[in-house]
Amino acid sequence: MDHNTSLEPNLQRRGFLQSGAVLGSALLLGSLATTASADDKMAKAETDFWEVIKTRRSVRKFLPNPVPDADLTKMIDMARLAATSGNQQPWKFLVIRDAEKINQLKEATVKTNAAAHFDSRPDKAVTREEMENGIRKRMAGYFSAPAYIIVLTDNRAQYADYNHWDGPLAAGNLMLAARALGYGTVFITDVIPDRVTKDVFHIPDHYTRVCITPVGVPVAWPDSPPKKKLEEFIAWETID
Amino acid sequence: MDHNTSLEPNLQRRGFLQSGAVLGSALLLGSLATTASADDKMAKAETDFWEVIKTRRSVRKFLPNPVPDADLTKMIDMARLAATSGNQQPWKFLVIRDAEKINQLKEATVKTNAAAHFDSRPDKAVTREEMENGIRKRMAGYFSAPAYIIVLTDNRAQYADYNHWDGPLAAGNLMLAARALGYGTVFITDVIPDRVTKDVFHIPDHYTRVCITPVGVPVAWPDSPPKKKLEEFIAWETID
Repeated sequence: MDHNTSLEPNLQRRGFLQSGAVLGSALLLGSLATTASADDKMAKAETDFWEVIKTRRSVRKFLPNPVPDADLTKMIDMARLAATSGNQQPWKFLVIRDAEKINQLKEATVKTNAAAHFDSRPDKAVTREEMENGIRKRMAGYFSAPAYIIVLTDNRAQYADYNHWDGPLAAGNLMLAARALGYGTVFITDVIPDRVTKDVFHIPDHYTRVCITPVGVPVAWPDSPPKKKLEEFIAWETID
Repeated sequence: MDHNTSLEPNLQRRGFLQSGAVLGSALLLGSLATTASADDKMAKAETDFWEVIKTRRSVRKFLPNPVPDADLTKMIDMARLAATSGNQQPWKFLVIRDAEKINQLKEATVKTNAAAHFDSRPDKAVTREEMENGIRKRMAGYFSAPAYIIVLTDNRAQYADYNHWDGPLAAGNLMLAARALGYGTVFITDVIPDRVTKDVFHIPDHYTRVCITPVGVPVAWPDSPPKKKLEEFIAWETID
């Protein structure tokens, strides 16, 4: 889930902005990311199951190379094969490639995040416009992809109470399939607010947004962030 | 999510028992399931990413062949590489292979489901014991696996409000990895109630159960249930 650069006050209090800034600097310095080579600039397919899981990354900066219909369709085909409650299949995948719409989403996101951030600041050392410009710059990577998929579940589905499981399961398959085809994704929640997505794309309220993800060829495949040890996750027979 | 044979009153009202009964009969007749061959009786690995996604199934009847530590560890290793909010990695995977504990889970599930069902019945044409016996028989397949994994998220995690996304994402990876190794799984929620799992395995309340899944070599790999057409899931640029 990506909320590293979210400007919502609650996340700011939890130190998100700081960690986002550190990550951003590290990426600029190339210390966390593999330098893009000529090869990286094409979608590199990976069909070994274990490699797909191991090499999926949250990607936040993309090349403009377009994503063909066939690739987007294949990702969605894999997503809808996820486990689903009583076989209800409550999903919709809204695909956006229209550059003007993507720009509208960006501007609405910048304005919304700036407003939330601005209103929560005790000092007003910067103007609203300056704040928007800063946010626009920091978020540029998120909006650099040629395609976006909004993963939705339909509240009118047969077992809609179970959508909260079905939704992420499909999104997970989608992100893995994108990686298998050589594309980066990132499961975005707060960074691009739910309401903004719904307003800009006129998504009816009978849909619940699971996430929005950019889809594109990464400028570079980032290294994995530090992970806990495998043993820490496993409880054999008993748990504390 | 598996609640096909759940006996909770609300699911019964929604026709779950009927559809469960139909599915059960079809499985007995072999019309929905591939007949088990000698080959099926070993865990058949599948490492092509696309095949893993396409051949994962919800499996409800297992052979007793044990699942080695190494295979369970590998599934969990893949699960914990799922996307996670702010890299919080809030997961725990409780592995149960102790036959006595599995039997305790089964008996507690039977009793709990029978009680819920019995209390909601207007007529009392059957005794509680008869009802328990019927449920025990119908649920036998769910408890025929040599191993169970309870997927948990820790409410004390850094961004616990986001666990509801992280949990299913990891469970999805786990089920795919199990399939890649030749094992069947099924994402169980209602069929084995949350409270029963927590009580029988003494799971502290600071964990939230995402699901419980059996893990084992399927008696047969079921065919896919009927699916909607791929086109129905995709909205290009606009959505109704």
